[in-house]
Amino acid sequence: MPHMKKGKITGELKNKSKDLMTVEWKNNQVVMIDQTKLPGKLVFLRYKKYEDVARAIERLIVRGAPAIGIAAAFGMSLAAISSKAKTHTALLRDLKIAYDRLRSTRPTAVNLAWALDKIMSVATSKTNVEDIKKSILLSALNMATDDITTNKKLGLNGAGIIGNDEVILTHCNAGSLATVTYGTALGVLRAANDMGKKIQVIATETRPVMQGSRLTAFELDYYNIDVSLIPDTAVGYLMSKGKINRVIVGADRILKTGHVYNKIGTYQVAALSKRHNIPFYVAAPLSTFDLSSNVNEVVIEERNKNELMKMGNKLLAPKGIKVFNPAFDVTPPELITGIITEKGILMPPYEESIAKNI
Amino acid sequence: MPHMKKGKITGELKNKSKDLMTVEWKNNQVVMIDQTKLPGKLVFLRYKKYEDVARAIERLIVRGAPAIGIAAAFGMSLAAISSKAKTHTALLRDLKIAYDRLRSTRPTAVNLAWALDKIMSVATSKTNVEDIKKSILLSALNMATDDITTNKKLGLNGAGIIGNDEVILTHCNAGSLATVTYGTALGVLRAANDMGKKIQVIATETRPVMQGSRLTAFELDYYNIDVSLIPDTAVGYLMSKGKINRVIVGADRILKTGHVYNKIGTYQVAALSKRHNIPFYVAAPLSTFDLSSNVNEVVIEERNKNELMKMGNKLLAPKGIKVFNPAFDVTPPELITGIITEKGILMPPYEESIAKNI
Repeated sequence: MPHMKKGKITGELKNKSKDLMTVEWKNNQVVMIDQTKLPGKLVFLRYKKYEDVARAIERLIVRGAPAIGIAAAFGMSLAAISSKAKTHTALLRDLKIAYDRLRSTRPTAVNLAWALDKIMSVATSKTNVEDIKKSILLSALNMATDDITTNKKLGLNGAGIIGNDEVILTHCNAGSLATVTYGTALGVLRAANDMGKKIQVIATETRPVMQGSRLTAFELDYYNIDVSLIPDTAVGYLMSKGKINRVIVGADRILKTGHVYNKIGTYQVAALSKRHNIPFYVAAPLSTFDLSSNVNEVVIEERNKNELMKMGNKLLAPKGIKVFNPAFDVTPPELITGIITEKGILMPPYEESIAKNI
Repeated sequence: MPHMKKGKITGELKNKSKDLMTVEWKNNQVVMIDQTKLPGKLVFLRYKKYEDVARAIERLIVRGAPAIGIAAAFGMSLAAISSKAKTHTALLRDLKIAYDRLRSTRPTAVNLAWALDKIMSVATSKTNVEDIKKSILLSALNMATDDITTNKKLGLNGAGIIGNDEVILTHCNAGSLATVTYGTALGVLRAANDMGKKIQVIATETRPVMQGSRLTAFELDYYNIDVSLIPDTAVGYLMSKGKINRVIVGADRILKTGHVYNKIGTYQVAALSKRHNIPFYVAAPLSTFDLSSNVNEVVIEERNKNELMKMGNKLLAPKGIKVFNPAFDVTPPELITGIITEKGILMPPYEESIAKNI
């Protein structure tokens, strides 16, 4: 993809005072960190076309429920800017095509649909072509700013429950790299760290895409937070040894019943937490809540078998073998101690606390 | 290591009628499959020196509790043959050096110590140099033959409990490649398959060394048994969906209390089985039982952090990150439905059934 190579900017890994900007709007382009190159290289990519943003979401160049929502919103702005439409009806037609394409990229995280729907409702509320284009960009920019303030509030709410000297396990990456810049689950840890609480973080590798090794370990190290990496197979053993005080993870979608869709492996971490009486928290902004779907209606994305078959050029399993590779699982409410949001911490029974607060 | 390259024989991957011979004695050499090259290449290595066998065990060229026991016994025979000692006292001194070296290779699996102790007791029962050399080889060869017959008996005992159309999950590799050729947990599955029972096997990848992807998937495919690969993170999700009927794993050491040491991740698979009311079986020969140690006395090997940091040349996590990489964990007896041995299936309470039968 030559347009990507052309647009490549290599960042400065040593300049750790700066927050990692996962997705940003600059000079009418979407700029994002290429997360597939981490932890080896911090590379920023620039996109001018919404189709390239869609492909970047599919290829996990950008991932994490809040971040893909913002990326898609900026993608809509690219679609609007590049549209040659002279009438608002023609523009809305172009936007609908972009909306469908971007929405099809990943089925499970609800923030993607949430952001796209918001952009479309802004677009349909105007009748002038230029007004529509401007208001889409403004709306996407506001979303990005809101993501930061939301996550900082969420972080502060969550940090209150973290004790000094705690060892906290997290799964996958719900950090800077899953949001615009502050993080949800890792935002809570950053806030606790900023308050001067001593914490140690255990990051699971998170097979098969290794977001724990590549992203969480990278970004906590970047922000100077004490982090240790473990294989996903060592979670139960560490818990049985009494080494984990708390678990905090992110979420891709939360239902009105309190069922949480998140990275594959979250459910078993929650079940093991229950067995060992370890508090298990979910940290997610309100945009993660889906109050209309039921638990059997949510599509769990199944990803390509090559994620298990290969690592770089190395073949990990015999060719032609069958593979089951779901990207997400669902954690039932009875395993969840609390859900940390920007409005406060929701407690069980979730059916009630969610209905009252969301 | 030029002696290894020199000794390399590449096997025929297509000749699936032949059993995989993991470790064998041929022409005064130890011949073993290089398991680090699987599933890409089936390569056999030949060793003439016990030191090379020790290094092969450390480097996981041969792994699996029963297989490393046999490999070490053959290593003792190499030490005996190459010794220039003229007296039995001098020979025993040489053998003791080889014993210490081989025994130090891996601390957790008890079969290694069991096999080495057996060889030493044979050696010390003779007084003539040539007698000692012959009887060590004979004893090692008998161990290899016994391993096959033992595992076939164990397989038949276990196959009796497998129902038709069952979906059975296994973790790590307790197959041909963990024994001389027949396998323990996978021996049970081979026996069930040979009886004409239709089974489907789910193999976990088994991070970090990927014995599930590289070895279990490879060998079940080789023996034409239906196998699907999943990431270690998907175990709980599959169980919650009711997709798993039974779990069977191997063991590296079993205590008199019924505590089972096995590959890291076994404990959490067992805990998740309990949560979902799925029968959880361990398959292991009697040589796996350690009736003298207590649960806090067994050393759990911690392996090199590079197993998590790198895959081939690809860097998976930021340099300098802390890593916790235990090779084994311990599953308590209350999570184990039964222990399949060559003598029959041990049932709880294990303290009683083990005392009575082992």
